[in-house]
Amino acid sequence: MSLNFEILSADTSGGRLGRLATPHGEVLTPMFMPVGTRASVKGMPPFLLKEAGATILLSNTFHLGLRPGSGLIRDLGGVHRFMGWEGPILTDSGGFQVFSLKGLRRVNEEGIAFRSPVDGAEIFLSPERSVEIQEELGVDVAMALDELVPGDAPRAAMAAAMERTTRWARRCQAAKQRKETALFGIVQGGMEEDLRTRSAADLTSLDLQGYAAGGFSVGEKKETFRRMAAFTAALLPQEKPRYLMGVGTPLDLVDASGWGYDLFDCVLPTRNARNGSLFTSRGTVSIKNAEHVRDETPLDATCPCWGCRHISRAYLNHLYRADDPTGLVLNTLHNLPFYLGLMARIRNAIGDGTLPELREEMAGAYEKAEGGA
Amino acid sequence: MSLNFEILSADTSGGRLGRLATPHGEVLTPMFMPVGTRASVKGMPPFLLKEAGATILLSNTFHLGLRPGSGLIRDLGGVHRFMGWEGPILTDSGGFQVFSLKGLRRVNEEGIAFRSPVDGAEIFLSPERSVEIQEELGVDVAMALDELVPGDAPRAAMAAAMERTTRWARRCQAAKQRKETALFGIVQGGMEEDLRTRSAADLTSLDLQGYAAGGFSVGEKKETFRRMAAFTAALLPQEKPRYLMGVGTPLDLVDASGWGYDLFDCVLPTRNARNGSLFTSRGTVSIKNAEHVRDETPLDATCPCWGCRHISRAYLNHLYRADDPTGLVLNTLHNLPFYLGLMARIRNAIGDGTLPELREEMAGAYEKAEGGA
Repeated sequence: MSLNFEILSADTSGGRLGRLATPHGEVLTPMFMPVGTRASVKGMPPFLLKEAGATILLSNTFHLGLRPGSGLIRDLGGVHRFMGWEGPILTDSGGFQVFSLKGLRRVNEEGIAFRSPVDGAEIFLSPERSVEIQEELGVDVAMALDELVPGDAPRAAMAAAMERTTRWARRCQAAKQRKETALFGIVQGGMEEDLRTRSAADLTSLDLQGYAAGGFSVGEKKETFRRMAAFTAALLPQEKPRYLMGVGTPLDLVDASGWGYDLFDCVLPTRNARNGSLFTSRGTVSIKNAEHVRDETPLDATCPCWGCRHISRAYLNHLYRADDPTGLVLNTLHNLPFYLGLMARIRNAIGDGTLPELREEMAGAYEKAEGGA
Repeated sequence: MSLNFEILSADTSGGRLGRLATPHGEVLTPMFMPVGTRASVKGMPPFLLKEAGATILLSNTFHLGLRPGSGLIRDLGGVHRFMGWEGPILTDSGGFQVFSLKGLRRVNEEGIAFRSPVDGAEIFLSPERSVEIQEELGVDVAMALDELVPGDAPRAAMAAAMERTTRWARRCQAAKQRKETALFGIVQGGMEEDLRTRSAADLTSLDLQGYAAGGFSVGEKKETFRRMAAFTAALLPQEKPRYLMGVGTPLDLVDASGWGYDLFDCVLPTRNARNGSLFTSRGTVSIKNAEHVRDETPLDATCPCWGCRHISRAYLNHLYRADDPTGLVLNTLHNLPFYLGLMARIRNAIGDGTLPELREEMAGAYEKAEGGA
């Protein structure tokens, strides 16, 4: 087996503390995966990622397949060696990125044809090719190619895409060649409980190594997301890792860990760092705001990151206004430890049965800000 | 005294090994100062600068005076605290940056009027104001405001600017208020030996804490630079620190250390890192070149930096092409240790009397590339 998942303890809510053993080391779950789209978390060499508390990364089949190409990375010894990251790596299948190309793609049963945004070349991504790219990269966890539809698509389109996603998962499973690759299937079905139920049942029958909930963060209401993501978690096998894709805010991570999800990824901590939007124990701080120009206090006095121990909001504001890359580095070195430290607190809270208290604390800092989302 | 300079040993060539004690710690000389224009070496938080071997930084009066303003930095406790760098900081006077504004400035005996490139405001930089800004920043070494003229200016203009620079140095000395501030004068006089001689003699009579050679890297031939920079070093007091401004290449640093200079600054290691031009024991490597796309070798197998121990030229090439800021960080984390490691080798070579052998080694790697400069 490429993957070994062990549940160490579970709380009454459904949250569980787990250990995921991969060919590149172990990960305690629930865990957040920083996003390293092009085999790099922007501005963060792996030794800084390690210091920030990262133990597993997400990278992108779509981007790496286009540039520098998965064959090149295979020839150079795989993506871990390429980027100098020794821990586990999970890649998405490319489905979400191709979905985002909108007018530039055509989908049929065979796969997805699209024009390369790099050089305009016509590219065909089939389930088999998606797995092949991910195996060339040599990742620990490959995601099966899924078909996405817009959040407001009619039910029939949702159902068709969900069914195709299951057929594609079967083809991915048949295409997989390396025993070191774990393949996860992606549950789709929009916001329809019966479609999600069928998707989960059909994928579970394939006995894949893990399961993800996809199709969220596509414009649905927050309450709908909460209801459907919790509903979907309960459909997935207890004994296998569950991955909630593209989620989320600090509060989402607490909630979804309580629903029984084990893995998360999201661009929020890294992209927001670059935009000057910083996570603190008291909510989000937009460091570019004029109120910080002369503010000599640390960003977050409770945070152990280098910046919070050594420099002020005024300095971060100055770096942001000067468009100085040191700002990007310091901001990311704050936001990532915030997320990864939150995951450690979530794991402790599951162990202690205190997840509701942690939820209350995070809601105090973040619920108001998220209310409209 | 704000500054204590002790010569530990000298070799027969004129090179000397020294120790510069400042209010923010000691610096072994000869030493290279990384350039942190806006109170930041781009992409390098201070803890990484320390790891790279930096012991003293240069920052810019001109840039910090404009944004965020020296009064703000004073109110926040000075530039060391502002940027979280505990070691010594030297600032240039702003003369060179204002000189670069060309059409936007007017110089008279009182000072330099120019339009702010930030907001178009009319600004007046006098010798007194330059010192005031540097004392508001709270730097360890302030540079006296100098007047620069183009490298091809007629001799009369060179002489007039040199004489004004001396008068301005006297005004800077009179304006200085903090005993913690060391003030260095700047020898000018173009490529004319008699003007340089008079400049050095007049400034020496002011008994400043250190002396710099300015007016180089303004388009002069390499041989002219070498002759005049060596000539100027010999004009300066033995017992005080000598700073060769804006220089230079690895070979320049070896040569100028042999001429008796103690301090250097240059944008080359940091700016070139951002442009993908990397210093190695075998000469410069342009990492963006197609030859590196599939190159699995390290940038420099003899280099102890994280990148050279963990990732390949192919990965650095990928990061450069993807315009990923991790490339900027890794490249700077290579170039700076190369420069600072070279300074350590220079200091050892002065102690051992082996500077000629080090010069020969560097010439083998770099002279060809510098031939046309």
